[in-house]
Amino acid sequence: MTDERERNFWGWGYADRFPDQETRKAIGAQVGALLGVPPLEPREPPPLDTIVLRPPRFELPPALAHLSSSAPRDRITHTHGRSYRDLVRGFRGDFTLAPDWVAYPSSEDDISALLAWCSDAHIALIPYGGGTSVVGGVEPDIGPSYNGVIALDLRCFDRVLDVDPLSRVARIQAGARGPAIEAQLAPHGLTLRHYPQSFEFSTLGGWIATRAGGHFATLHTHIDDFVSSIRMLTPAGVYATRRLPASGAGPSPDRLALGSEGILGVITEAWLRVQARPRYRASASVAFPSFADGAAAARALAQSGLHPANCRLIDRTEMLLNGVAADGEAVLLLGFESADHPLDTWIHRALAITAEHRGRCPDGPKIRDDGERTAASAASTYRESFFQAPYLQTALVSLGVVVDTFETACPWDRFDALHTAVDTAVRGAGARALACRFTHVYPDGPAPYYTFLAPAEPGEELERWYAIRRAAADAVLATGGTITHHHAVGRLHRPWYDHERPDPFALALRAAKRALDPQGILNPGVLIDPEPR
Amino acid sequence: MTDERERNFWGWGYADRFPDQETRKAIGAQVGALLGVPPLEPREPPPLDTIVLRPPRFELPPALAHLSSSAPRDRITHTHGRSYRDLVRGFRGDFTLAPDWVAYPSSEDDISALLAWCSDAHIALIPYGGGTSVVGGVEPDIGPSYNGVIALDLRCFDRVLDVDPLSRVARIQAGARGPAIEAQLAPHGLTLRHYPQSFEFSTLGGWIATRAGGHFATLHTHIDDFVSSIRMLTPAGVYATRRLPASGAGPSPDRLALGSEGILGVITEAWLRVQARPRYRASASVAFPSFADGAAAARALAQSGLHPANCRLIDRTEMLLNGVAADGEAVLLLGFESADHPLDTWIHRALAITAEHRGRCPDGPKIRDDGERTAASAASTYRESFFQAPYLQTALVSLGVVVDTFETACPWDRFDALHTAVDTAVRGAGARALACRFTHVYPDGPAPYYTFLAPAEPGEELERWYAIRRAAADAVLATGGTITHHHAVGRLHRPWYDHERPDPFALALRAAKRALDPQGILNPGVLIDPEPR
Repeated sequence: MTDERERNFWGWGYADRFPDQETRKAIGAQVGALLGVPPLEPREPPPLDTIVLRPPRFELPPALAHLSSSAPRDRITHTHGRSYRDLVRGFRGDFTLAPDWVAYPSSEDDISALLAWCSDAHIALIPYGGGTSVVGGVEPDIGPSYNGVIALDLRCFDRVLDVDPLSRVARIQAGARGPAIEAQLAPHGLTLRHYPQSFEFSTLGGWIATRAGGHFATLHTHIDDFVSSIRMLTPAGVYATRRLPASGAGPSPDRLALGSEGILGVITEAWLRVQARPRYRASASVAFPSFADGAAAARALAQSGLHPANCRLIDRTEMLLNGVAADGEAVLLLGFESADHPLDTWIHRALAITAEHRGRCPDGPKIRDDGERTAASAASTYRESFFQAPYLQTALVSLGVVVDTFETACPWDRFDALHTAVDTAVRGAGARALACRFTHVYPDGPAPYYTFLAPAEPGEELERWYAIRRAAADAVLATGGTITHHHAVGRLHRPWYDHERPDPFALALRAAKRALDPQGILNPGVLIDPEPR
Repeated sequence: MTDERERNFWGWGYADRFPDQETRKAIGAQVGALLGVPPLEPREPPPLDTIVLRPPRFELPPALAHLSSSAPRDRITHTHGRSYRDLVRGFRGDFTLAPDWVAYPSSEDDISALLAWCSDAHIALIPYGGGTSVVGGVEPDIGPSYNGVIALDLRCFDRVLDVDPLSRVARIQAGARGPAIEAQLAPHGLTLRHYPQSFEFSTLGGWIATRAGGHFATLHTHIDDFVSSIRMLTPAGVYATRRLPASGAGPSPDRLALGSEGILGVITEAWLRVQARPRYRASASVAFPSFADGAAAARALAQSGLHPANCRLIDRTEMLLNGVAADGEAVLLLGFESADHPLDTWIHRALAITAEHRGRCPDGPKIRDDGERTAASAASTYRESFFQAPYLQTALVSLGVVVDTFETACPWDRFDALHTAVDTAVRGAGARALACRFTHVYPDGPAPYYTFLAPAEPGEELERWYAIRRAAADAVLATGGTITHHHAVGRLHRPWYDHERPDPFALALRAAKRALDPQGILNPGVLIDPEPR
């Protein structure tokens, strides 16, 4: 169905980037030392053609069959997202949950036909963008009441359809991935600059459906704030909002679609706020004698009104994992960017603020005004490492390491208690290493992001992993955090999401779902339970 | 029920600020000249005690009667908001729609008891904050299917309950008015800085329910962006969201409450993002040879990333109405403020941008770093005039002038067409003067705000007014605007709101309403039609 570079069917990214055995052996020795266990030995995943799938449970009518596939590779690559659990199941060759069919619609009429036929036939339909969910958001774990399940892959919706350079907005199809969006905006001198870690593979529709968090560390960072309007096909009709800079007309229809995770409709396109490509940049790496000092500086910066584009605080373990060198217990990667004005005033004031909190920046700031890519610095080392991380996780899975991330956001006054509780919970559940960074900071609180590693006996990886994740989530909820700042809810976070949201909101969401998807075919089990038939 | 300074029962604000006959006579001569008609003669409203009300249609049980009133003054002052239509009806002594009772609950238990009793008795309940709606949002025009109606006045919920200075958030009760909020935050060195034109009388709960627009001309300006969490009582239970800086967990529960206009529940309190009181200020008035030049400058500023706090473009007629002197066809009132840093760099870059669009600022910027109130300037003259405007409208109603405002927001590429269409429509429907300003500007579009004046034969004011408003709203919708940027929908904007929102969103909202308010008692007719019983 596609002629692109081959993807790893069980792990992250391109197949040719899965490290060879020798490289993984070297990683296994390093990680073993970190975890206090003997060197870890690489294992191999099963060949794709040895994987056994249940036959499709139903046939499609000809009009839908011609745009769909039940070939094993299609079904296998649409079974899981890319959570740790997904990688482990994939590595074990466990694709029990494979969808019966994968549909590749190329028009809205195709999608409407799928919605109508699935509603009639009581077939579950799972909107599928890049398949990079780390919360089981696209996994066909739909329970026994459906007659089958189709993954609806939006890859044919991959274009930037319109650009309005005056209003700086662009109409973009939902299946467009990060690099394709940037490539199509670049000739206009514009950029979306939304860089979630999944950027290489994830899609605009997925970002909207999951309220993805992006590049900017302060101010507007969730995709929510870049959406000017949304077009979503529902079984009850076309949900198309008006392209507007702002409105006060009733509850925002965009905000109901944002975060709907495929349960209300299939997002097909949206108008997005884009911006001029930055020309001026100023950056600095600031070391702190303690993480608490760095956190206080990050808070002061978030409350300063300076709006740095980058303001990422990383702790000692995070530095180690990402190859960032610095003489301190925490490093703040600080950056400003602008298409309009030089940033000397901004970076100097920001550094003054960090100095008030015992921050040291011996090399001073790097200031550029040529629009060229900033030369190698701690921040760019970190950025490269940032996009490598999912590949590394995939390699670690082949070594039997339990390695995963989770994230939250909380008010500043709750952070110390939350961090202590998380650290205690995660280590108590068996993690040997825990790294923390702030991916985003707001005037009223940070978004802490955690990475943990743990050893496990072969075959017991998922039990160990879930024990740690459960302990962490309990600790986060108990101390005032949210179950997710930007990873979404999916199937993994449901128990804590149900606790976090107000009960009457659950009633309202269930009612809205019933109104838009009366047969309950769209992504059953995500956000709310399927209704009894 | 209250010992406060007496309010004008039919018009805006305090009774003692309604101008005497001589003053109004002078205004009448000026406005007559502007409209090209003979001097307008002041008329007088009826004394309150001559107004005849229908007797209450029902009795309250003792537990609710003790916190309620059916005294004529209470019922009269809770009949209307403060739209032009409301002023005219009030001035004519027409209080046909008066609620049967006004309840003044002082606890959440009181509110829950009201919700339960009204649900059982099929009595409509209208949450009432400051009563400043200009769209019929609090008017008991509920149709014939209810057994009566109660206005639920939140004035007893007027306190700031908690302040977290670290996270810079405050827990504030929904009935607190603008001045009371600022007075209670000031001892903490904090401010909400949300200044809608109704600031003196409107309440936090009203701002949230209507997505009010405030002080800031760029960046965060709707109350939506200052809300960290909301507590709302619904017939189906307590809808309380978690205090968080951000979350990606499903569609935002806050965003469903924001703009719900009293149809889903009674907002009782919220955590709001507050900020340090600004110490540094920089401002300038920039004159432009044409409104189009000023608009281009405002657009460039909105897209610059400088984030001015004030960036209000006003046209020649608006200058005249507000006593702002400038040598040009448009003036941009530009201002920056910060608690953290001097603003020289910001204002100088902003003035350079305006100069690129033929802006002239002969006096240069005014820069202060003392935290004192900025001395008189075009901007502060304008601000005073801004808060006076509703008092002036009230005086003009007593002169028989048709005078009102409406507002919208649209993409930049649509503004010229929208403005031309509005001008043609409004003048075609009989307006003799039309003033335009941008109250807010976004990277992707402005929020134009219009004031119009028209003469009318005595007794025909409302027909003239509605003909103009209808023509304007049709023009706004046809050219890509929203029916409201910050005045809300209420009952006045319903026809255009129904056209603007996606049909499936209407289905979802109706379903959510049914889930939270099964008997349909809350503010019937606003946003959606009452369901048939």
